[in-house]
Amino acid sequence: MTTTIPNWLQQRAFLTPHRRALTYGDRSWSFAELYEESKVWAYKLAGIGVKKEEAIGVLGTNCPQTIFLLHALQQIGAKTVLLNTRLTVEELVFQVNDANVEKVILDNQLQSKFASLEQDLFVCTYEQLMELPELPLTLRHEFSLNEICSIMYTSGTTGNPKGVQQTYGNHWWSAVGSALNLGLHENDAWLCALPLFHISGYSILIRSVIYGIEVVLMKQFDEKKANEYLCSGHASIMSVVATMLDRMVRELGDNVYHPRFRCMLLGGGPAPKSLLERCIDRQIPVFQTYGMTETASQVVTLSPEHVFSKLGSAGKPLFPVQIEIRVDERVATPNEAGEIVVKGPNVTPGYLNRSDANNERFQNGWFFTGDYGYLDDEGFLYVLDRRSDLIISGGENIYPAEIESVLHSHPAVLEAGVIGIDDDVWGQVPCAFVVLASGVSMEELKNYCTKRLAKYKIPKKFIVVDELPRNASNKLMRRKLKEWIKVNEHAGT
Amino acid sequence: MTTTIPNWLQQRAFLTPHRRALTYGDRSWSFAELYEESKVWAYKLAGIGVKKEEAIGVLGTNCPQTIFLLHALQQIGAKTVLLNTRLTVEELVFQVNDANVEKVILDNQLQSKFASLEQDLFVCTYEQLMELPELPLTLRHEFSLNEICSIMYTSGTTGNPKGVQQTYGNHWWSAVGSALNLGLHENDAWLCALPLFHISGYSILIRSVIYGIEVVLMKQFDEKKANEYLCSGHASIMSVVATMLDRMVRELGDNVYHPRFRCMLLGGGPAPKSLLERCIDRQIPVFQTYGMTETASQVVTLSPEHVFSKLGSAGKPLFPVQIEIRVDERVATPNEAGEIVVKGPNVTPGYLNRSDANNERFQNGWFFTGDYGYLDDEGFLYVLDRRSDLIISGGENIYPAEIESVLHSHPAVLEAGVIGIDDDVWGQVPCAFVVLASGVSMEELKNYCTKRLAKYKIPKKFIVVDELPRNASNKLMRRKLKEWIKVNEHAGT
Repeated sequence: MTTTIPNWLQQRAFLTPHRRALTYGDRSWSFAELYEESKVWAYKLAGIGVKKEEAIGVLGTNCPQTIFLLHALQQIGAKTVLLNTRLTVEELVFQVNDANVEKVILDNQLQSKFASLEQDLFVCTYEQLMELPELPLTLRHEFSLNEICSIMYTSGTTGNPKGVQQTYGNHWWSAVGSALNLGLHENDAWLCALPLFHISGYSILIRSVIYGIEVVLMKQFDEKKANEYLCSGHASIMSVVATMLDRMVRELGDNVYHPRFRCMLLGGGPAPKSLLERCIDRQIPVFQTYGMTETASQVVTLSPEHVFSKLGSAGKPLFPVQIEIRVDERVATPNEAGEIVVKGPNVTPGYLNRSDANNERFQNGWFFTGDYGYLDDEGFLYVLDRRSDLIISGGENIYPAEIESVLHSHPAVLEAGVIGIDDDVWGQVPCAFVVLASGVSMEELKNYCTKRLAKYKIPKKFIVVDELPRNASNKLMRRKLKEWIKVNEHAGT
Repeated sequence: MTTTIPNWLQQRAFLTPHRRALTYGDRSWSFAELYEESKVWAYKLAGIGVKKEEAIGVLGTNCPQTIFLLHALQQIGAKTVLLNTRLTVEELVFQVNDANVEKVILDNQLQSKFASLEQDLFVCTYEQLMELPELPLTLRHEFSLNEICSIMYTSGTTGNPKGVQQTYGNHWWSAVGSALNLGLHENDAWLCALPLFHISGYSILIRSVIYGIEVVLMKQFDEKKANEYLCSGHASIMSVVATMLDRMVRELGDNVYHPRFRCMLLGGGPAPKSLLERCIDRQIPVFQTYGMTETASQVVTLSPEHVFSKLGSAGKPLFPVQIEIRVDERVATPNEAGEIVVKGPNVTPGYLNRSDANNERFQNGWFFTGDYGYLDDEGFLYVLDRRSDLIISGGENIYPAEIESVLHSHPAVLEAGVIGIDDDVWGQVPCAFVVLASGVSMEELKNYCTKRLAKYKIPKKFIVVDELPRNASNKLMRRKLKEWIKVNEHAGT
């Protein structure tokens, strides 16, 4: 029996039409207004033939129009393929083709992204769309929890990025799980300074509608402006990654946030102790979290009272979620490290067109994250290694394999190994170790990458080596590379 | 795809073991302790052979043991048949047989209930159960949302009471829908002075575990004690019916509740305006609600800000719920009265053993409540008539048909018609109109009812008439009886 729920934006606009839904700069929209705007956008989309279940690419910055568009696609029941604005045209084209996208709607200012495109793709800017006539079409009255709502690409250990399919149910359960953990106050407002194309930003939109709370949207993160929102009491919750929080705490100086501010949700990898200490000093309630695109946002959260007693832990699962550690097909004992597996109604039904990865990573309802960690005696999760030596740079996930694959495609490169190295600004940045077949300048390798990879993925450092560390089965041991960096640093002091 | 969630008590005890789960008088239990107690009870139940999916009758008062027992049955996965302690043995036996119950667990003090029982039924008091050895058994680790959790009997227009099957999903969605409406604060505590065998009480237990908040349990309602809990700030939410609220407001005098108290959830029929006015005076935030056993508690709620602008309305639906008014198989226009139909994941999958009622009252996912009302231009629900001229007496539902059927079985009674009449203490009480075949004293009819009906169902007044008002198709017109009463009263003044 498939569970259906009312179309959440329509229901919210019906239940609390006058409550504030969105603030962007000086402008605000109520839920009734948000719904009306989204309907206009839906009728415009009907004008270009957008249909239920069709996959539509969205390349949007953080602006109200992107929000109207994302809601409009839900009103129609189209699947939204959220495209990262920082990707190169090559990367975008892969995702568009993989998801069978024939139409991409994009921000006016991002029009140049597809300028060099050779293949046939219908590309339409927000401005162009708004000039079209509205066509009648039946909007959704209900959502089935099994329907695909959105697709977001994530890279893995090997090969191309994979499209993570997120159902309406995944988003619903994620929102509910979060509310059961963080509570829900009538006057909550969520500050969104993370990209809407990431699950971290997109999930805020969904929560806003389900909870009936305001989204305070920022075009891009700015620590001064963000602090103003939190000091004035405009927002009560904010999602951040460590880099952002660090900049905010520095900018804050001796000021404190308004008492209404009650939750700083910190994702994207563990936070340094010094930062957490500064947050305690400033009375900032930090909730560290662990989550991923495949789980439609956070699955494990550490409440502020455990910040120091469980330092380094990501916390305990959300209410509907189960976490286990698996070692050789058995469940690990407490404090024994293994692969982190997750089960819950917020977990994706699978990757698009990737039966191999689906077979490998989904077993009896459990999702194998590829991340390593352990549970302590009390069940608190400690994440030791993000999957495939994931590099998290300013909140963006970077998969070494993707960069290695690009480097390896260069004629002069025999082998490549990429790891993350510490960076004061971004937390981590990629560093490449290369074994060369012939002479090539690092400048040229950088240029080569620039054409093929989003800017944040381009290695900030290249190190030429004679060979790469490999294990018995010839698998690259990236941990060894990390040790090499440490030895290097030590030698340099 | 069936959705599973973690066993909610086990998960709650894992997530927040030290948080307070239950207070009863001077004693309190944490969630870890509540889980431990429930496990002990589950192992004892295993000792008398209680199995997964078996229907077990529970006849319990409001006490911690009943709570341990109710949770224990969930740990095993048995279906709990909640028996109303005010029923006669005849009424109980009907329900026990209908639900195929072979074992009834009951409060020590209720042992006499089954004393006159002739049929073969395993009856075990709490005390007897506790003396048994514990037997090992595998407790549930997960709940499937489609599984039947509980069965509660409700009467209808005709014939015998019907067993309403409530799934784990019904309870889950009800709890989530309520939280999305009322919010969820970390320090919430819910005062439970309604019977645990009713959905109004049972649902508080479930919410407590899902939300991680305390239940403050009262053996029975007492306005002085209840006011103490609310004035001291011990409880932040309380479920009441109008009779209770009236007594509390009178007892309160010039005192006010603690600022922590944030929600008086008022069910069981509309409240008189004078009572609502006195609540406003006392700054008591009243949330009027409409709901039923079939929807696993509230489905429509009116927030305090609309108390007077929407006087008499039950409010708007909970987030996952849809409400429509149907007239002759079409959806009514605004302000047009018709049958209230409800759709949502909190709605029962159906009545036990009642394929006729199920066919009649469930269509395309919509549940036909049998209640009449209308939606205004803004979608606020106004309930005009509870189904089958339901009489609500001190929060208990009384169905005229049930009493009429008993009266009709008496040899001296040709016809009987029952309606509710106003009562200062109980809101309403039953009044019977009888057409006699031969002479009989009203005293005898009362005695006849006493043996067959719970005390609160026995007519407080008998009126002998020559004939009953019937419509063209010979259906009893209870509304006419109400008019007769009014004329009667008028003549009397």
